[in-house]
Amino acid sequence: MSRLKAAVVGATGIAGQQFLAALAGHPLFEVTVLAASQRSAGKKYIDAIKTRDGALQWFCQEPLHPGLALLPVVDGMGFDPAGVDIVFTALESDAARELEPLYARFVPVLSTASAFRMETDVPILIPGINSDHMPLIRVMQQKRGWRGFIIPGANCTTVGLAITLAPLQQAFGIRSVLMTSLQSVSGAGRSPGVIGLDIIDNVIPHIPREEEKVEQEIRKILGGLADDQVIPASFDVSATCTRVPVLQGHTECVSVSLEQSVSVEQARNAFLQFASDYAHPDLPSAPKRLITVHDDPFRPQPRLDRDSDEGMTTHVGRIRACHALQHGISYVLVSHNTRMGAARGAVLMAEELLRRGYIEGGYA
Amino acid sequence: MSRLKAAVVGATGIAGQQFLAALAGHPLFEVTVLAASQRSAGKKYIDAIKTRDGALQWFCQEPLHPGLALLPVVDGMGFDPAGVDIVFTALESDAARELEPLYARFVPVLSTASAFRMETDVPILIPGINSDHMPLIRVMQQKRGWRGFIIPGANCTTVGLAITLAPLQQAFGIRSVLMTSLQSVSGAGRSPGVIGLDIIDNVIPHIPREEEKVEQEIRKILGGLADDQVIPASFDVSATCTRVPVLQGHTECVSVSLEQSVSVEQARNAFLQFASDYAHPDLPSAPKRLITVHDDPFRPQPRLDRDSDEGMTTHVGRIRACHALQHGISYVLVSHNTRMGAARGAVLMAEELLRRGYIEGGYA
Amino acid sequence: MSRLKAAVVGATGIAGQQFLAALAGHPLFEVTVLAASQRSAGKKYIDAIKTRDGALQWFCQEPLHPGLALLPVVDGMGFDPAGVDIVFTALESDAARELEPLYARFVPVLSTASAFRMETDVPILIPGINSDHMPLIRVMQQKRGWRGFIIPGANCTTVGLAITLAPLQQAFGIRSVLMTSLQSVSGAGRSPGVIGLDIIDNVIPHIPREEEKVEQEIRKILGGLADDQVIPASFDVSATCTRVPVLQGHTECVSVSLEQSVSVEQARNAFLQFASDYAHPDLPSAPKRLITVHDDPFRPQPRLDRDSDEGMTTHVGRIRACHALQHGISYVLVSHNTRMGAARGAVLMAEELLRRGYIEGGYA
Amino acid sequence: MSRLKAAVVGATGIAGQQFLAALAGHPLFEVTVLAASQRSAGKKYIDAIKTRDGALQWFCQEPLHPGLALLPVVDGMGFDPAGVDIVFTALESDAARELEPLYARFVPVLSTASAFRMETDVPILIPGINSDHMPLIRVMQQKRGWRGFIIPGANCTTVGLAITLAPLQQAFGIRSVLMTSLQSVSGAGRSPGVIGLDIIDNVIPHIPREEEKVEQEIRKILGGLADDQVIPASFDVSATCTRVPVLQGHTECVSVSLEQSVSVEQARNAFLQFASDYAHPDLPSAPKRLITVHDDPFRPQPRLDRDSDEGMTTHVGRIRACHALQHGISYVLVSHNTRMGAARGAVLMAEELLRRGYIEGGYA
Repeated sequence: MSRLKAAVVGATGIAGQQFLAALAGHPLFEVTVLAASQRSAGKKYIDAIKTRDGALQWFCQEPLHPGLALLPVVDGMGFDPAGVDIVFTALESDAARELEPLYARFVPVLSTASAFRMETDVPILIPGINSDHMPLIRVMQQKRGWRGFIIPGANCTTVGLAITLAPLQQAFGIRSVLMTSLQSVSGAGRSPGVIGLDIIDNVIPHIPREEEKVEQEIRKILGGLADDQVIPASFDVSATCTRVPVLQGHTECVSVSLEQSVSVEQARNAFLQFASDYAHPDLPSAPKRLITVHDDPFRPQPRLDRDSDEGMTTHVGRIRACHALQHGISYVLVSHNTRMGAARGAVLMAEELLRRGYIEGGYA
Repeated sequence: MSRLKAAVVGATGIAGQQFLAALAGHPLFEVTVLAASQRSAGKKYIDAIKTRDGALQWFCQEPLHPGLALLPVVDGMGFDPAGVDIVFTALESDAARELEPLYARFVPVLSTASAFRMETDVPILIPGINSDHMPLIRVMQQKRGWRGFIIPGANCTTVGLAITLAPLQQAFGIRSVLMTSLQSVSGAGRSPGVIGLDIIDNVIPHIPREEEKVEQEIRKILGGLADDQVIPASFDVSATCTRVPVLQGHTECVSVSLEQSVSVEQARNAFLQFASDYAHPDLPSAPKRLITVHDDPFRPQPRLDRDSDEGMTTHVGRIRACHALQHGISYVLVSHNTRMGAARGAVLMAEELLRRGYIEGGYA
Repeated sequence: MSRLKAAVVGATGIAGQQFLAALAGHPLFEVTVLAASQRSAGKKYIDAIKTRDGALQWFCQEPLHPGLALLPVVDGMGFDPAGVDIVFTALESDAARELEPLYARFVPVLSTASAFRMETDVPILIPGINSDHMPLIRVMQQKRGWRGFIIPGANCTTVGLAITLAPLQQAFGIRSVLMTSLQSVSGAGRSPGVIGLDIIDNVIPHIPREEEKVEQEIRKILGGLADDQVIPASFDVSATCTRVPVLQGHTECVSVSLEQSVSVEQARNAFLQFASDYAHPDLPSAPKRLITVHDDPFRPQPRLDRDSDEGMTTHVGRIRACHALQHGISYVLVSHNTRMGAARGAVLMAEELLRRGYIEGGYA
Repeated sequence: MSRLKAAVVGATGIAGQQFLAALAGHPLFEVTVLAASQRSAGKKYIDAIKTRDGALQWFCQEPLHPGLALLPVVDGMGFDPAGVDIVFTALESDAARELEPLYARFVPVLSTASAFRMETDVPILIPGINSDHMPLIRVMQQKRGWRGFIIPGANCTTVGLAITLAPLQQAFGIRSVLMTSLQSVSGAGRSPGVIGLDIIDNVIPHIPREEEKVEQEIRKILGGLADDQVIPASFDVSATCTRVPVLQGHTECVSVSLEQSVSVEQARNAFLQFASDYAHPDLPSAPKRLITVHDDPFRPQPRLDRDSDEGMTTHVGRIRACHALQHGISYVLVSHNTRMGAARGAVLMAEELLRRGYIEGGYA
């Protein structure tokens, strides 16, 4: 099969660049369109990401692919979505609300934006976690008259939490969840992002709208599918989201009240055995394991663990009893917020959808 | 009244230096003895805190008091405790277990070490919080045949948590507590302390023995006094203690299940009204308020708030409902770990004990 | 004498806030007008410095003065300069070029902007360094037909360098200067400032246009006054300006080739004796010493030394021979870039000009 | 040819671990002996690098090779050097002075320690820079009666400076050099290393004995070989060495006075063309280029550039005229201090010595 033609919209920002890094040399997708705001349109990509002072603003560890560097950037409105097979978007919420439906009329749209996450006919899909919500795609297509569809990924802080709650929910049932996040500065992007003057030698104890997103999204992602919508999971989630002086990788300290008494060993096994058969040749972006369990009590640490398995595994450690909750278990997770938590996670989701026939190609 | 003669033992470390800063020019106490390990004994204080390369290792923001700089350092075993009225100790746990009883035979000992915190006849006292435990001092003296006594302060992470739980316990009753700390590097001291190579761009998700200390100490401090011991509070505490790249000031994200339904406004009032009459001319180290409440959702922040009121107030913000707990309230606190959380807190405690007659002076 | 009425223009930015902090309770100046961009005009000051999310953006260590907090903000064009006695401006260069002459027609303008620094009839004045350039003010007034004048302060990186070169030039003569700066993030302000994603665990080896400014300004400041202009000093200056993960305080590593052979002790004495009589009751913002000399080889350090003497002294240490230059001396300096290096330095300059009769008051 | 048997002495420290990372799967060397202090002797390597709390202290980005993990650690005195073909040492200076000659009696010793650097019959060798000094090895062997020899690598700060001065010296001649370093915390190792409390939000302007080392070593490395010793280069070097909050990668700001007038373009070409044929199949640790030239004025940056080419290339940028020096050129370099600047550089040196016949194998 020839590779599917892919457009990346919002290609110049941090998340957009992560799409380019994730798709460079990808065996299933070929980037043929780079779109961004009007300001960048008409420039070569490499020129569109330079500052006025001539500094190249490329933020991924992987080098910029030479072929993509010279691709011309088009306006997000200025390309024919019917000319590609799939669109990956890395847009602010307002732009996503306007542009994504234009593309979804024709082709599948995999998005990192929050704009459509809470629409009843739109599932939030996380790789390996809730493929049982995929049939909702047909509802969305029928209801909206779209040939394609929109699949928003979850908020970057939601992703690691959902991945680690899934095995506990499946094995033991969940009553309630408390989570405190220590989030990295890359989650705030660059415009304006978090300035050094605010975050060096400091903690910022509030990230606007983040806690509400996590609390709602978790319950939707781990909910059950009814005829034409997701029924949110019935447990409560309470989040405290903070920003710390870390470049990449969100750390989350989680305490869960389970439906039954569970030993630390049983919880550990649930993490270890979860989705152990997930890796598959059809999923080239998949990590070796969705969850990596650490027994060293000083792990996971964001700087030491974020990049393992291309940033696509979720690290769990410090599993222990939580005496303040009934049937309580506590643990610490580290998730790479701009890889599994954003663009690369969306690419992996596209691979899953392709494998299951929701994306077929041949649109273009 | 002339000032009480004070010895500072462990005077060269970070906590010991904070004692010197807290006691410089103090109206009630006069430092007459500086003690440290054998290695420092015999040197002038200012020479004892220099490295082999000649760099002065003075870590307080306040300048080193010239009078103290020239005081000779004696061995911790090498002075007569009967020659002072009070001893402040900043020792490692093992040294505290050995040395503090030698002093307590003669005079009151205010300690930052954990050695005696869990002895049944020894109260852990926090200024403004549990003066009702003071009568246990008489039990300790009688049982051990001491003329003086030992009062250990709480672990630096316990202090802010105890101070902010006290008003909630008093007004509403507490069922359970979950806390995630984001602790500063100064809490680890200097030998070896937390090295830059480990903490820059990182979070360390484990501090050995810290969580157990917090969980035990909170329940003792907020417990009730029986005849000859403290009956720990009956609620459970679950702590996750992490280290972040912050110099001073511990941030703690707290969720509390209360005995009754409480609005955010009621919780806020409980914090505001708690110990509002605490400041007193007899307590020169006391803050204007034990608790400072912030309505700006981005506060408290350790760098911006730690030094207000000489680092002696505990900052509370982001008060909100916690839906994952019954009658749940969440908040964020910032407490200065080397001031109220250590030496300066012990000096304030000494002022309280003096005011209430447990310290009388005239020993020397 | 009643206090002079002062306007602060650009009052909402970092440098503008430093003006407010420097002028709060000032014995000679009284802030009566706060001006900023149109976006802020009409709001109370305290509301003008809040984000959309309601967070107060006040960046000084000193608390915001309650009286200033409630002052209404006016547009920079929207007040009558004839209604004040002096204007302090903290503007971007383009805005300064447009607005400052409007004010200077009527009153003295003390500026932190670079717009007029290199005009031949405009002196760059640094407190205690080049008051011999003040007569150029009369040339400026005559030539431009202004009742007032514009005095730009130097670039924040220039300030510490000029202050420490002055005694060497005066005592020994200077042949050439090489300087590498390690600049703090506060020098870049907030819009956009230096983002955490760029500076954590990193050095940025280039600050656009900074090196050229330092090289030109030093020679002008340390030049001699001819009839109607400054003749730049004849020595060459070569600067390398870098940004490091430090909040406040620029560190500069300097090597100077002198006109004659000089011992370390002689250089040290030149620093020590320079302007030792500078402090004066008429200069309330003056430091105890313009230059503080450190003998500890590990000092000065920006975090430990920047705030001493209200950030108004320049710290010099590591004075030693430089064998790679003829008659070479090397040293390290730390200067507080947002205090002496910006607003508070401009206030001190105003005090000097008042003392010497260049500012008279009575304009308003 | 079968692989040479290698011992790594001082294997548990940061530099020692870098040796293990550099030698894991190496085609020419096989680690057969791991030696460390008596404290570690007898343990499996993986146990020897755990803290008392059980945390694994492995500091390289590369995972620990499973075969090496289980190798027993021997005392540095406790193995027969005649049983290996080569010894790599990562020792403190005192231990190096004692142990390295014991090994050198039998086999070649490649060292990261400073102990023997200034001995007249011992060359300091840097890969690609001064292979013309290799014949001194025969002098050393003859004079000391050794079958093997000791080759100390240069100080980590010297390495990048020597590599970038070499092309300038060769093409134009050098009169004098001024350098200010901004060094990373990893250069200080771990015991005690640089603690977070000292370096966060700070610059430390002094690193004991570092400047002297750089000044002496550069002149020796770039000197000429006489009969039985190196004649130091005649130019003067003046260094200011500072520590900044960066994890890995030293940044150095260099100004050089050349023997002749040179344009920026000529200097750039000298860097570009230098050792452009260095990479060779016999040098598996060699970078693609010894020097990488950057035209983006914001590069090189330590975080962005240190890891390219396995940390073995030296990055040069910001090449420009320096007007304060005669025929002056300034530039900024970034060099990876624990890779090319330490263990991996020593491994590359061993490859060079093997290629040129100074190491032959067959000792064991």
